[in-house]
Amino acid sequence: MIALASPRSVGRKLPFAGGEIEVQVASPEAFAGVTYALFSAGASTARELAPAAAAHGAVVIDNSSAWRMDPEVPLIVPEVNMHAAAKRPRGIIANPNCSTIQMLVALKPLHDAARIRHIVVSTYQAASGKGQAAMEELLAQHHALMNGAAPPASILPGQLAMNVLMDWKASPGSDYSEEELKMVNETRKILGDDTIAVSPTTVRVPVVTGHSESVHVQFHRPMDAVEARRLLASAPGVKLFDEPYAPGRHPQPIHAVGTDDVFVGRVRDDLGVPGALNLFIVADNLRKGAALNAVQIAERLHA
Amino acid sequence: MIALASPRSVGRKLPFAGGEIEVQVASPEAFAGVTYALFSAGASTARELAPAAAAHGAVVIDNSSAWRMDPEVPLIVPEVNMHAAAKRPRGIIANPNCSTIQMLVALKPLHDAARIRHIVVSTYQAASGKGQAAMEELLAQHHALMNGAAPPASILPGQLAMNVLMDWKASPGSDYSEEELKMVNETRKILGDDTIAVSPTTVRVPVVTGHSESVHVQFHRPMDAVEARRLLASAPGVKLFDEPYAPGRHPQPIHAVGTDDVFVGRVRDDLGVPGALNLFIVADNLRKGAALNAVQIAERLHA
Repeated sequence: MIALASPRSVGRKLPFAGGEIEVQVASPEAFAGVTYALFSAGASTARELAPAAAAHGAVVIDNSSAWRMDPEVPLIVPEVNMHAAAKRPRGIIANPNCSTIQMLVALKPLHDAARIRHIVVSTYQAASGKGQAAMEELLAQHHALMNGAAPPASILPGQLAMNVLMDWKASPGSDYSEEELKMVNETRKILGDDTIAVSPTTVRVPVVTGHSESVHVQFHRPMDAVEARRLLASAPGVKLFDEPYAPGRHPQPIHAVGTDDVFVGRVRDDLGVPGALNLFIVADNLRKGAALNAVQIAERLHA
Repeated sequence: MIALASPRSVGRKLPFAGGEIEVQVASPEAFAGVTYALFSAGASTARELAPAAAAHGAVVIDNSSAWRMDPEVPLIVPEVNMHAAAKRPRGIIANPNCSTIQMLVALKPLHDAARIRHIVVSTYQAASGKGQAAMEELLAQHHALMNGAAPPASILPGQLAMNVLMDWKASPGSDYSEEELKMVNETRKILGDDTIAVSPTTVRVPVVTGHSESVHVQFHRPMDAVEARRLLASAPGVKLFDEPYAPGRHPQPIHAVGTDDVFVGRVRDDLGVPGALNLFIVADNLRKGAALNAVQIAERLHA
């Protein structure tokens, strides 16, 4: 086990397995002898160092967006398409976008049963999805507003506290944000079905950690809420919130934080489209949406 | 001009037109001589007193849910169906639910052009939609969390600060909340088309004022974003946010607060369903979503 980072962090000591390990510099040579290389760096670092690690024989599991849509790189959610990880000509496996992971853990058992035709998804994403600095800025914005001051906005492109904000990069030539297009393209790649229609709207809300998603889904054959709940109750990685709606009784970010599960609730037969469903999906975006999923991929490969 | 309220508020002085008016008790007799009676009370008070006011010859404009689905009571958004206010056999006009009003101000010009088939709507609703006490509790929850204390939750059914929360009443016999069913039934009644499918998920977010809505809409004939923007640019009550998406450039609650307009942005051709659209709709839920709409109905009747 070694820990690699940019020169800035070299020498830092990290707690590991009851002891400590010292951070070394992430050079191409540092990967010699490594079996599994879990990358959690930016896309440009991943583009540069992942092939070097793979050349040393490591299986790279990369959390950035750099390799996700490369046709020679499998994009893996263990509960959904672990089989696809076997074929990795570049020696690289990509970890999907956080919003896509939790949505597909919930939708996979329904897709297997009735084949998804169309997903309409609106997200309620937490600040920590944008990193530590954004999370701290959200808290600083709250402090400022509580004290009647102008909220600072150097990481976020504006006020997120007591507001909603779409802070994702624009996609040149599209009206959609990069985050929205990731949900479309990654969903199709992971489910292995380019005919699936995805209608995404990604929104940041003033929550520290825990992404929520409101999802409407239509199938090739009708599915009802009773069948969906039965499938979800035994689905891997899913925690079904199976009780009738009452005020405050539904999956919430504060339930999901610090847990590994994808919480699914508000499973409802659609009122207008027979055989379609509406559901609400919540998970810890830092765990299942990022680090945990990468670790689970390595664990499954190793097993 | 008279101001009526429950005995608790009698004698309070309210600023009006440069002077003051004193609150009197809301008894059936108090409506003698009143031409327009704007009701902003609970449903049970509205059920009791609206017929009394109407019996005195007043046109009642009621903001509660008491009369909205009565077939003899028109349900009015002035920009959408003012014509329906002419026939009011009970002397009562109902003001719709806040979420429905802003959605229909935005969708009406599109419906007129291409007839809506299906709406999928996920809301991001503000605490003030639940009243002054909920708004104050949200702020108290933030203060408590900032100080490491447990957030108070006597009005709200749980933690809304730094979280998302569905706090609406359950609808007996349904998996949907009352708020969600209002969006279905009121949309059909106001647009006068019972064939419109509405798939609603209503969510409260930690925002003080300003409801947001992520809306996917399908039509009987294809509509594209160019045509939709052209229609919205000249639609009454709509403020079109007509610029390409960039981080932080879209309608937000902090833009809408204190204004009368319904802000519409993120107008996008759907990526999977040809001729469908996605859009984001934001308005001040206390103004256009409530009091302003009622006043506008009275103004139009008077004109």
